[in-house]
Amino acid sequence: MTVTATSSHLANMATRAAGFQPSPVRAVFDVSMQPGMISLAGGNPYLPALPLEGIAELARGVVLERGLEALQYGSGAGTEELQALICQVMKREGISAAPENIQVTAGSQMALELVTKLFCDPGDVVIAEGPTYVGALGVFEGFQAEVAHVAMDDDGVDPEHLQQLIAGLKAAGKTIKFFYTIPNFNNPSGISLSLERRQRVVDVCRAEDVLIVEDNPYGLLAFDGAPAPALHSLDPDNVLYLGSFSKIFAPGLRVGWVVAPEDVRGRLQIASEATTICPSVLSQLIVENYISSYDWRGQIEAYSSVYASRCRATLDALAAHMPDGTHWTTPAGGFFTWVTLPEGIDTEQVLAAAIDSGVVFVPGSAFYADGGGANQLRIAFSYADEEQLSEGVRRLGEAIRGL
Amino acid sequence: MTVTATSSHLANMATRAAGFQPSPVRAVFDVSMQPGMISLAGGNPYLPALPLEGIAELARGVVLERGLEALQYGSGAGTEELQALICQVMKREGISAAPENIQVTAGSQMALELVTKLFCDPGDVVIAEGPTYVGALGVFEGFQAEVAHVAMDDDGVDPEHLQQLIAGLKAAGKTIKFFYTIPNFNNPSGISLSLERRQRVVDVCRAEDVLIVEDNPYGLLAFDGAPAPALHSLDPDNVLYLGSFSKIFAPGLRVGWVVAPEDVRGRLQIASEATTICPSVLSQLIVENYISSYDWRGQIEAYSSVYASRCRATLDALAAHMPDGTHWTTPAGGFFTWVTLPEGIDTEQVLAAAIDSGVVFVPGSAFYADGGGANQLRIAFSYADEEQLSEGVRRLGEAIRGL
Repeated sequence: MTVTATSSHLANMATRAAGFQPSPVRAVFDVSMQPGMISLAGGNPYLPALPLEGIAELARGVVLERGLEALQYGSGAGTEELQALICQVMKREGISAAPENIQVTAGSQMALELVTKLFCDPGDVVIAEGPTYVGALGVFEGFQAEVAHVAMDDDGVDPEHLQQLIAGLKAAGKTIKFFYTIPNFNNPSGISLSLERRQRVVDVCRAEDVLIVEDNPYGLLAFDGAPAPALHSLDPDNVLYLGSFSKIFAPGLRVGWVVAPEDVRGRLQIASEATTICPSVLSQLIVENYISSYDWRGQIEAYSSVYASRCRATLDALAAHMPDGTHWTTPAGGFFTWVTLPEGIDTEQVLAAAIDSGVVFVPGSAFYADGGGANQLRIAFSYADEEQLSEGVRRLGEAIRGL
Repeated sequence: MTVTATSSHLANMATRAAGFQPSPVRAVFDVSMQPGMISLAGGNPYLPALPLEGIAELARGVVLERGLEALQYGSGAGTEELQALICQVMKREGISAAPENIQVTAGSQMALELVTKLFCDPGDVVIAEGPTYVGALGVFEGFQAEVAHVAMDDDGVDPEHLQQLIAGLKAAGKTIKFFYTIPNFNNPSGISLSLERRQRVVDVCRAEDVLIVEDNPYGLLAFDGAPAPALHSLDPDNVLYLGSFSKIFAPGLRVGWVVAPEDVRGRLQIASEATTICPSVLSQLIVENYISSYDWRGQIEAYSSVYASRCRATLDALAAHMPDGTHWTTPAGGFFTWVTLPEGIDTEQVLAAAIDSGVVFVPGSAFYADGGGANQLRIAFSYADEEQLSEGVRRLGEAIRGL
């Protein structure tokens, strides 16, 4: 028997529940599952690149040899060994942190949830790139924070614009809690913050006493294999760094982390325990064994090489099929490219036509809190293969021309 | 390099962050790990009762045969097969629900977090048994909800007291959001709501338009094997039911769930996606295979038989070693018994002496939001064996007499 809702429950919900409405983006992911549909929507990693037999043995070994630990409650902070291994992984991006600075979370989404829960009262302002990660907007909305977007060009956020925005918000009496940024292969734009601007962004935030929340799930997935220095490496005291094994290993395990000054990390642990007691210990031990016994660096190269080839196929297809006046970004890593169609074309309308043509994507408006992005859209090239990407972009061009 | 906190970050935190302070209870769990210490503190299930070799093979099979699903992002609601299996499991308690009513969560702690996030504005009131689960108090505090305790006797909550409390709160202009209850083998008290009172509690809440949140991790762990009917079975429309595989299978997987009317479940899914995108798919598939291919009912019997024996040893030791005038509950299942010492004995003081004697427990004050429980304490008999329990209670008696 399906129990249907009584409206009284919905009426009794908290003010913040208004932010938990079904969104148009959700429908996109349902449509993605239709047979014959080519999805340029979801940012799913290409898991067939993983050595499943080896991981199966590894999972078996973890339960057989450490089952009483793997299946039991664990530390709210995460396992000590994983905290230490995460510090090793982050060294590739120049981060110097100690295990005591690491809070392991059930995916880096939870890391952002906990940081926002800890910092944001209703009406507080979070600065975020425009466009930014749709899942981050959901978190900020859930805690009734306001989002102020800072524009990007092909080198990422302009530090002077950031400073002006901060000054303007302060002058308007707003309380800014942090600058949320995805500096590498930004979701959705594919843009990276240039090396020249990194120090300046960090300096601006330090001078203005604005905390930086650096979300970096894609940083190690540079097509040329050379990761950029993390913002955290430039000002560890004023940057909370969110990391994830979802893109460099596998998202189904739900293992991410935050790097934070010790006092902040302690608070994050208490918030994390209230949310989930501890991250899955089984997942943590599988990640431990994967990082300590498997060639995880080689696996990142294997992933990156797949994505580089798919990105090329996507950009080639865009050149072949997009109408004149269309622009797109040229990512140097990650999962996404960002397409700006000529003014006046509404990508939500394009989406309806595109679905009829057998292709889905996420319209640009999903990535703005302020109604921007009407003529923009995101293409994920991580999951579909080259042939599907080419055909998908061809169908997209057809849908646009048909309007 | 360990990054230490700058006080400015702590000062910039949200109002609710005041609720994320280190608590004395946390220290208890650290002390539990000391060599030679007998812990009566943590409610950890006795995992050596599990068939680790079989689970190891099962984990291997899941990755080998369904690895592309297990390691990928999954549905925010949980896997369809697990939703259906959860409905089967709950039939033992008389619950009739459809898969569309099930929101899978990363442990039932997260289920409570999401429900509270969805319903509670600051200053809203949650009614909870006194004493109640310390982890629930942490959730309520994190969302700045006020807790009003309703007293229990050996048959659980008195429905007339509940009604009077509700009336009094309403008369005082308070907004009551829900009644949070652990009706079976309550944590920490070990008390169960009598069959006679169940319908009346449900009727009172229905008449007063107060939602019930039924938290039931221990319900299937009755020593006599006969589960009581869930409150949800008596009024599915007005009861949100929280379930967990942590006690009937294994907590390290972090798999729990909420049963809710469809509209509420939809909102819970959006809140859950903001928190963790999806629960670990690997964990969900392991639970699926465990429930569908393993004698999970037999495993519950094996667990219950261990706990019944440990409970007996604990109660016998209490009779032998507690001072005159001490009372304790006689649980019919679950993990805990609740000890009330003579008036004037402060169990936080007892704790310090007990640690010196080589035994730890959680003082009663941890389970009240209002400063109650000063002469009370919780004993968990789930994890230590009979010999340790007897010796632990003996040391406890010694510590009390030494004060």
